Amino acid sequence: MNLIIDVGNTRVKTAVFEKDKLKELFFFNKGEIFTSVKEITKKFPIQRGIISAVAKLTDEKIEKLKGILNLITLDNETKVPFINKYETPKTLGVDRIALAAYAISNHPNKNVLVIDAGTCVTFDFVNAQGEYLGGAISPGLKMRYQSLNNYTSKLPLLNSKEPNSFIGKNTQESIHSGVVNGISREIDGVITQYKNKFGDLTVLLTGGDTNFLVKQLKNDIFANPNLVLEGLHQILTYNRADD
Amino acid sequence: MNLIIDVGNTRVKTAVFEKDKLKELFFFNKGEIFTSVKEITKKFPIQRGIISAVAKLTDEKIEKLKGILNLITLDNETKVPFINKYETPKTLGVDRIALAAYAISNHPNKNVLVIDAGTCVTFDFVNAQGEYLGGAISPGLKMRYQSLNNYTSKLPLLNSKEPNSFIGKNTQESIHSGVVNGISREIDGVITQYKNKFGDLTVLLTGGDTNFLVKQLKNDIFANPNLVLEGLHQILTYNRADD
Repeated sequence: MNLIIDVGNTRVKTAVFEKDKLKELFFFNKGEIFTSVKEITKKFPIQRGIISAVAKLTDEKIEKLKGILNLITLDNETKVPFINKYETPKTLGVDRIALAAYAISNHPNKNVLVIDAGTCVTFDFVNAQGEYLGGAISPGLKMRYQSLNNYTSKLPLLNSKEPNSFIGKNTQESIHSGVVNGISREIDGVITQYKNKFGDLTVLLTGGDTNFLVKQLKNDIFANPNLVLEGLHQILTYNRADD
Repeated sequence: MNLIIDVGNTRVKTAVFEKDKLKELFFFNKGEIFTSVKEITKKFPIQRGIISAVAKLTDEKIEKLKGILNLITLDNETKVPFINKYETPKTLGVDRIALAAYAISNHPNKNVLVIDAGTCVTFDFVNAQGEYLGGAISPGLKMRYQSLNNYTSKLPLLNSKEPNSFIGKNTQESIHSGVVNGISREIDGVITQYKNKFGDLTVLLTGGDTNFLVKQLKNDIFANPNLVLEGLHQILTYNRADD
């Protein structure tokens, strides 16, 4: 079994994979990483692991984790199963690297657009030749609600809610339409641009807002909130094959 | 001649109208409103005026301005040339009231969507029966750039720039695509929703980012950055006719 560790700003997401299947998910605070990972390795026969976003942990903590399990760290030097055509590969975020790895491994010889709806909405495109070409970074769903409140004097801070209509009939409904309908029309419009340019296109949607947004979109989409973890597992497998 | 005064958070926009034509624009800081308006009334034979967003000025300042010229104040009690179907008309912003007044006065018996690209992007819809139905409020261009920087730890703060491609090949180009191409696809997508629902549609684009965004949009649009001032002038004319 393999352990995938994705370190966020405050939370850590981990996944136990058995062969190629995500078996169980665990979430905990960054401060508890050592004790939590140790517990997981006691519960499951973990052979290897991969950890991403290591810049958010001290070298000391990484070394301590490497004492528990055979762990590779993902950074911009790690070998990946796609050809990186980004002009500045060292600035490509580890989440976007993992998503490109997922796309190429699970949809080889296809044009694939991966949309990650989290803090930001990121778009990442891998073509049928296995080349990662880049994409876009746009404000995420909660960020849009927060910014409308934060950068204006009168608009309230609202929680995400499906708008009753795209024509909002009061301030709250106008905001829900502007944020939820707006981000959905943006995503659908960008998908159409890729389809117009590349023809046949596979579209994947992931991230924390996957289930909320998938109902709003008009395009056919594969939705799975855990593609970063799946992609990290692909990178681990790719690097193991090389041992 | 008429004087239109639109008070913003820090800046004041004024326009001198001769009959139905905007003749000259003046911009100044809110603190200079009394001396600046006095100068304008010396230069031009102003008969009447209208002032909006009066909540941003003290009653004392309003009274002082009324000592210089025959001034009506726009608030949610002012008579307007459209039927307000907003569920909470008292919370409808004065800019949106002015834009609806412009739409109905200049495009009577038409379905009109007015898009104001400023701090926020607001959508306002008036149908062919002269009814204001509502719309949406979404983050504006600069707000999107600011929020990507403010709510993440790694993304830089950039100035607006037309993206080289919708497929950003480095972090900066990914952000320009996500913000500029994203907001444009959102606006085009919302226009399409109104067209699908109402058929024939006139689309107007206004606000500070008008000239920057109009090049990015795929729909046919009338672009004019000063529609709020034009709409305020329509409201003044509508109330004068009643004297």
